[in-house]
Amino acid sequence: MPRKYFDQELELLTKRITAMGDVINGRIETTIQALRTGNTELAQQVAAGDNEIDRLEHENEKLCMNLIASQQPIASDLRIIAASLKILTDMEREADQCADICEIITTSGMADSQRLPVSHIVNALEKVHDMFTGSMDVFLSRDIEKAKSICVADDEIDSAFGKIVLEVSSALTQNPKEVMQDVDLLFIIKYVERMGDHATNIAEWVIYMVTGEHPELNDGDDAFKSAD
Amino acid sequence: MPRKYFDQELELLTKRITAMGDVINGRIETTIQALRTGNTELAQQVAAGDNEIDRLEHENEKLCMNLIASQQPIASDLRIIAASLKILTDMEREADQCADICEIITTSGMADSQRLPVSHIVNALEKVHDMFTGSMDVFLSRDIEKAKSICVADDEIDSAFGKIVLEVSSALTQNPKEVMQDVDLLFIIKYVERMGDHATNIAEWVIYMVTGEHPELNDGDDAFKSAD
Repeated sequence: MPRKYFDQELELLTKRITAMGDVINGRIETTIQALRTGNTELAQQVAAGDNEIDRLEHENEKLCMNLIASQQPIASDLRIIAASLKILTDMEREADQCADICEIITTSGMADSQRLPVSHIVNALEKVHDMFTGSMDVFLSRDIEKAKSICVADDEIDSAFGKIVLEVSSALTQNPKEVMQDVDLLFIIKYVERMGDHATNIAEWVIYMVTGEHPELNDGDDAFKSAD
Repeated sequence: MPRKYFDQELELLTKRITAMGDVINGRIETTIQALRTGNTELAQQVAAGDNEIDRLEHENEKLCMNLIASQQPIASDLRIIAASLKILTDMEREADQCADICEIITTSGMADSQRLPVSHIVNALEKVHDMFTGSMDVFLSRDIEKAKSICVADDEIDSAFGKIVLEVSSALTQNPKEVMQDVDLLFIIKYVERMGDHATNIAEWVIYMVTGEHPELNDGDDAFKSAD
């Protein structure tokens, strides 16, 4: 494959991943709305649409694999494609967790007494949404400083997670009738916390794309040696 | 790269992934023991050892990527390597969840009143352990029927999850003093349920390796076209 054609294919891959990011963004927005309003129809839409994301992930993985196989890529190309594969996995998990949250909303509903913790979860999910859109932005811009700031923002989500778990746990002892709904809320906030982790992972893979160093793996070497 | 050398490299990859599976197996066993006995030292060992698994995952990913890049692989080779990459992700998540469970054991401990639900969680985790060792077996043997039986076994885990959540939830209202420990137990059983999902994913990727069809994706096509 001539270099020019390879670059075109790499650009196509970037576009496709960005388009998949837009779809997931829509899912997160609808999840926020469903959580805020308790609208089960909206929640059902998200829960039912998860297959589409799986299909997009699969298509983009194909593109990555064919791109690796079609020419002996140099180390920096291989690093971009390897990171793209990992990013696709984290993106798919973001959407998965939206579907998980929405499935709970559909089956469990929200009690009036849960309004306050739910509003706190919505706030946390809005921050996670910002982290995800930010991670997709840096995937395009390769802005390392912005990528690092996304990793730092995850500390806020972890701290919000701790606070909301405490809040819901204390409500649990006060409203024994709504125990199952409160337990569902605990699972929802856990999913939100995981969504923050996945957005962080994406930002970390962008850092790896550019620098060859992964903040978590931190072994300092360039993981993928040149094939030529 | 001559075919013979490529086959040797593929065999090396299989051995390395199997060796990583053995390490993770050890982690699951220690997690079961820590959960059963409440031994925080054992739990700390697992929680502290997660970096090693990340390193193994990363090394094996390198091997996959270099193998794809080093020769234009035929479709069936590409499918094996692509599936191996996905399997590595699910394996790493298994170990991650062991670390998550063990971190809770370390920080929270178990109350005497929790012995019964904990024993039920241990039972579920033992089944998940069987599923994981089974999935590593089929990764070697490519036994499709056994792979399918692992996917079916996950229904038992999902059903156990539902029952244990109910059990812990009803305890929550009876022992308000131990509410935080019960909430931790809910997160632990959620992790066990996810571990069942990851073992299932591995079995599904083995089916894909052999047949070119993924039970979940179910699009019937051979995802990775030949590069030559």
